[in-house]
Amino acid sequence: MSSTLGASFRVTTYGESHGGAVGVICDGIPACVPVDLEQIQCQLSRRRPGQSRFTTPRQEQDLLQVSSGLEDGHTLGTPVHLWVANKDSNPKEYESMKALYRPSHADFTTLHKYRTRPKSGGGRASARETVARVAAGAFAEQILRHFIPDLSIVAFVDQLGSVAMSADFDCHTLSREQVDQNPLRYPDLNHYESAAGLLSRVKDAGDSLGGAICCIIQGIPVGLGEPVFSKLEADLARAMLSIPACRGFEIGSGFSSITMLGSQHNDLFEQKTGGRIGTRTNYSGGVQGGISNGEPIKFRTAFKPVSTIGLPQQTLNTAAERVEYSPQNGRHDPCVVPRAVPIVESMAAVVLLDHFLRHRGQNSLDPMGGSQV
Amino acid sequence: MSSTLGASFRVTTYGESHGGAVGVICDGIPACVPVDLEQIQCQLSRRRPGQSRFTTPRQEQDLLQVSSGLEDGHTLGTPVHLWVANKDSNPKEYESMKALYRPSHADFTTLHKYRTRPKSGGGRASARETVARVAAGAFAEQILRHFIPDLSIVAFVDQLGSVAMSADFDCHTLSREQVDQNPLRYPDLNHYESAAGLLSRVKDAGDSLGGAICCIIQGIPVGLGEPVFSKLEADLARAMLSIPACRGFEIGSGFSSITMLGSQHNDLFEQKTGGRIGTRTNYSGGVQGGISNGEPIKFRTAFKPVSTIGLPQQTLNTAAERVEYSPQNGRHDPCVVPRAVPIVESMAAVVLLDHFLRHRGQNSLDPMGGSQV
Amino acid sequence: MSSTLGASFRVTTYGESHGGAVGVICDGIPACVPVDLEQIQCQLSRRRPGQSRFTTPRQEQDLLQVSSGLEDGHTLGTPVHLWVANKDSNPKEYESMKALYRPSHADFTTLHKYRTRPKSGGGRASARETVARVAAGAFAEQILRHFIPDLSIVAFVDQLGSVAMSADFDCHTLSREQVDQNPLRYPDLNHYESAAGLLSRVKDAGDSLGGAICCIIQGIPVGLGEPVFSKLEADLARAMLSIPACRGFEIGSGFSSITMLGSQHNDLFEQKTGGRIGTRTNYSGGVQGGISNGEPIKFRTAFKPVSTIGLPQQTLNTAAERVEYSPQNGRHDPCVVPRAVPIVESMAAVVLLDHFLRHRGQNSLDPMGGSQV
Amino acid sequence: MSSTLGASFRVTTYGESHGGAVGVICDGIPACVPVDLEQIQCQLSRRRPGQSRFTTPRQEQDLLQVSSGLEDGHTLGTPVHLWVANKDSNPKEYESMKALYRPSHADFTTLHKYRTRPKSGGGRASARETVARVAAGAFAEQILRHFIPDLSIVAFVDQLGSVAMSADFDCHTLSREQVDQNPLRYPDLNHYESAAGLLSRVKDAGDSLGGAICCIIQGIPVGLGEPVFSKLEADLARAMLSIPACRGFEIGSGFSSITMLGSQHNDLFEQKTGGRIGTRTNYSGGVQGGISNGEPIKFRTAFKPVSTIGLPQQTLNTAAERVEYSPQNGRHDPCVVPRAVPIVESMAAVVLLDHFLRHRGQNSLDPMGGSQV
Repeated sequence: MSSTLGASFRVTTYGESHGGAVGVICDGIPACVPVDLEQIQCQLSRRRPGQSRFTTPRQEQDLLQVSSGLEDGHTLGTPVHLWVANKDSNPKEYESMKALYRPSHADFTTLHKYRTRPKSGGGRASARETVARVAAGAFAEQILRHFIPDLSIVAFVDQLGSVAMSADFDCHTLSREQVDQNPLRYPDLNHYESAAGLLSRVKDAGDSLGGAICCIIQGIPVGLGEPVFSKLEADLARAMLSIPACRGFEIGSGFSSITMLGSQHNDLFEQKTGGRIGTRTNYSGGVQGGISNGEPIKFRTAFKPVSTIGLPQQTLNTAAERVEYSPQNGRHDPCVVPRAVPIVESMAAVVLLDHFLRHRGQNSLDPMGGSQV
Repeated sequence: MSSTLGASFRVTTYGESHGGAVGVICDGIPACVPVDLEQIQCQLSRRRPGQSRFTTPRQEQDLLQVSSGLEDGHTLGTPVHLWVANKDSNPKEYESMKALYRPSHADFTTLHKYRTRPKSGGGRASARETVARVAAGAFAEQILRHFIPDLSIVAFVDQLGSVAMSADFDCHTLSREQVDQNPLRYPDLNHYESAAGLLSRVKDAGDSLGGAICCIIQGIPVGLGEPVFSKLEADLARAMLSIPACRGFEIGSGFSSITMLGSQHNDLFEQKTGGRIGTRTNYSGGVQGGISNGEPIKFRTAFKPVSTIGLPQQTLNTAAERVEYSPQNGRHDPCVVPRAVPIVESMAAVVLLDHFLRHRGQNSLDPMGGSQV
Repeated sequence: MSSTLGASFRVTTYGESHGGAVGVICDGIPACVPVDLEQIQCQLSRRRPGQSRFTTPRQEQDLLQVSSGLEDGHTLGTPVHLWVANKDSNPKEYESMKALYRPSHADFTTLHKYRTRPKSGGGRASARETVARVAAGAFAEQILRHFIPDLSIVAFVDQLGSVAMSADFDCHTLSREQVDQNPLRYPDLNHYESAAGLLSRVKDAGDSLGGAICCIIQGIPVGLGEPVFSKLEADLARAMLSIPACRGFEIGSGFSSITMLGSQHNDLFEQKTGGRIGTRTNYSGGVQGGISNGEPIKFRTAFKPVSTIGLPQQTLNTAAERVEYSPQNGRHDPCVVPRAVPIVESMAAVVLLDHFLRHRGQNSLDPMGGSQV
Repeated sequence: MSSTLGASFRVTTYGESHGGAVGVICDGIPACVPVDLEQIQCQLSRRRPGQSRFTTPRQEQDLLQVSSGLEDGHTLGTPVHLWVANKDSNPKEYESMKALYRPSHADFTTLHKYRTRPKSGGGRASARETVARVAAGAFAEQILRHFIPDLSIVAFVDQLGSVAMSADFDCHTLSREQVDQNPLRYPDLNHYESAAGLLSRVKDAGDSLGGAICCIIQGIPVGLGEPVFSKLEADLARAMLSIPACRGFEIGSGFSSITMLGSQHNDLFEQKTGGRIGTRTNYSGGVQGGISNGEPIKFRTAFKPVSTIGLPQQTLNTAAERVEYSPQNGRHDPCVVPRAVPIVESMAAVVLLDHFLRHRGQNSLDPMGGSQV
């Protein structure tokens, strides 16, 4: 449903861009798991506006608050409510756009679906909504890592406009620290200057630019995901396409598989060091038949250029009259992908924890589910 | 959940590749809607194997049967059970592959997730499972068309291996009849011979090939889809990635938006003939903020080359020993996309009907929901 | 939702009283569990009409059929479709009642909710719908017993009209065989003749009678059920009240707790033989704070007198004219409770298996969920 | 699931008894509906502790706070987060009980299910959790009344220990104001002194007492509720049994139907003033075949005596040693039913709004769901 995601691990979010707060209830949580709120704050800060010249100057500290579900730093098994206050909202800035449809925003569709829309800004369609996703995802990741200590979820920008990473860049060893070494979260330093230069020019021109994010997940055991409608890649695709501005998703070979032959594309099974059964190649992206196969899960997402640009644009007002629209405050990102990196990681973590718990419920070898009595 | 899709309109499927039947229960159906079973049979026949030299020779008539929910050709509002018997299943043919992991199939992951797998073939991971999807989708489409008479859902192959359609080919006026004019469902006749020649060579070589399917949906009113986790494109992406062999999804401009500027990509609002508010371009693919905007919904999906090929391949058996595997019967499609066309249409119809009913429930202007008393 | 019950173990049913079949898809099933179809058939036969002079003479063999999910007598982890054909349906018998509202039936509400209703009988409101519940429940019970070998679910009639069981009758040692020793499934033989005589007189008078069913479940470990909205007794109550003609549910002390003092009612903890912590009394009915506490789960349900009676009754036809209604065929039970006994057991089994799997998912001590790799 | 209730209108709650706050996210809300927060505060105040000598002296103002979903006093169609801070929590008071199992509390089951429990009190099993239910219910009631202006939901205490209301007391005309005329919410003034005297004696003795609450809902149109698993009475039963201390539920004639004949119990259809089709009697309690029939919906719930009593009791500590337990602070209600009245009304409102929206979604006569374009 609209504001809830997940079957066994469920997150339910709330909050308009310029309301009092944005928050999330996480439910279905295993008990007795240690949770470090600093790690959640850290991911929130990676998403936070105002990090660099490439992000919107809106000032939000995004300080994490917790109302329930934790005691002495451990989960109780009860719902955890995580939230962040909106501080720098300024509904007045949105006066000028109240009565018109900003191009490629949700103003038009929201007004026609609900017969109303927030006067105070983008409402649920604002990127501010993603605060709740990151809080939930950073929380989910810790729960999952408690059970899978080797878990690694690392997303990064692999293309910015036309500046793509080198085909031979090894992204399987990247850490988040390496990704964060530059404000674009674009780890291929051979092309970084080119990307940064391009984005600077776009920004100076009052325009915006698209980009792509790749995500690599390592440590997931064989068995997560369910056949038919809850294939792991299907739930990942849904989670990614639900991120504002995301326009595409591909797993493993993705769209490049269109031009491949089966004899090239098939991942041959072989024994790996230590006896593990793995595949020689990983065109499957770590998922076969909708179920994780123990290889790194690798997917890629496309983000369109941000709809808010500084340039004047023709549009209609709510009386269907032609008007010219220029945003007044300039509070927007020239490209969404640097800040979207932790959002992608977070949505992946939410999906994976859900499937981890679903798998245990159906297929656990612990018959009594841990009960001691 | 695994075998159920949808919130207000829900489909729940069952059936292994070589069990007795495959079927689906559709629930949450508006009553008093006329249903023509011939139209469902027609879509099933478009999916059916054995249609041409480009499809598997497995012989299944796939005759639709109905056990409930209809009376005098109209829905009762109760669950509709649609099913098709498996006739040409031959579990013995699968003897040779029982004890090994076919490359890029679900054999390995299924066995390790469930500690068992069907001896008789691909089980739920087989393309045979999609019979139930098509039955449900063709049914959903009729329900939806009852409320939206102008509805049109047309999918087609827009790329086969490296043979893509011309960029200027107009696909918005295509009908299913036009799509079906050739066995590849590849409507750009300027490149058809090239595509057919390529696929013939691939088939003759015992190999398989990837392809892409584009789907265009017209007539959907403004307002379907929900912000945040059930954006229309998110639910479409999930539905598509849940189809066997689907590796990617993009809505509107999709992956090509990565290289675009906001000033190019933004769809400017304008008044259309008749006063309707529309957009000049449709890079959004008919969805803005996760909600349909009245423009054609356009998405594209990537399908990998079929995993079953005629060529011998190295793999491991379940004892982790290296073996060579060659399928015995040659029953496979050299490319999945011609038969996947009705599957893509069906999954789209299921998602759209669900969102149509969800939208009515939340936002109807008919307060009593139709009650007469 | 209407035709689906459960979160981790899910059953979805279909079938009108006089359609082609009634059936159920069970999903979320642990794999590798042996299933004995005879045991399911046995419960279906306990529900079957025509068992004695106290039940409707409709003739249905109710032979169980299975289309999926089992191989070599074991679950595959995939959906299991169980169904039974309708053989003795005779829609013509219902001609006389087509255009009127039978008193206390669902004719009136169904017609006004859906603007149509099955011409052929009670549709989904018919007791025939419960065939699917019993198939699903008998299946669920086997799965659950695989993990909890000591499980015992025994329901029985504890009141028939005004003839209640003795207060000191020990019902905790009853087996289904003992319950089935008489056609009323009324195990207190001291009052059996009185109950049977009463029901005979009611039947001969063309009337019907209410009754009550008690259910005792033994062997459930501590920990099933979830706080707040999915308390075990809440989900049991929903499941029971969803059975046609069920009008009330009470857990443990139930309605009699109204007149009790806390000092009487509190179940004091003590050590039992073998060191198990248990309670001295069991007014809680085996559930505390919505979670099973290891004591027998005991609940009781009230069933109203069957609405179909042989006596003529005043009612309205669909033109709102006053008419007199007498059923033509006399196919009804004078009291529903003997045949409802396996239905109550079945619904309990469905709820318990669901909660068992949910508990494992959230609280398993087996981190990897059974994955071997 | 545990902390979420509803399909189309969904409430998700959080909050331990002695955590920072208790709150709820309501989702699936129709837009443009006026909401008066005072009315929600009013119901919260009816639930609030410290109202009279019959309720716990814990001091909580329970001031309602809203973080999202409303603008200018109207719903936006987005999730509404309602919450209340915990002010008078005093975890230290619970020191004495930390290491033991209070009789008939959830201490034992919570600890064994989750292998931990809140040190600070009852956690989610505390009655404090019901704050979120009342906030959600009072909100839901306003939404529902917007569409059904004649809606009336009135609950009241109809039995306190052995002091039942007169059988001929007319409870169909009661308003909440009348119910609130005495602190017991026991409207039959002929027996009020007797009930109050009994409860005073119980309280003075350090004991507690059970009671019953009846709820009458008027104005619901024909058509709410779904056949099979989501019968209206089934969902009401689940909602009621999910309230702490609730032990039983009956709809209409309920348990008294056990001793009735069909010829007595059947509600005969007849035309009412104004042409409405109704029933002469209402043993069905306003629901037939699981669907509302336009008559008043009437149900009754049983509440056990409060588990916390002032008297010393034998129990075990977590080391399984016998100990005597007496609560230190005396903060408990001698009987839960007066404060449970608004909780029962609230849970009913949540269920009814959900079914109202579900019915509209499936059966609306407004094809486009309100879309203007």
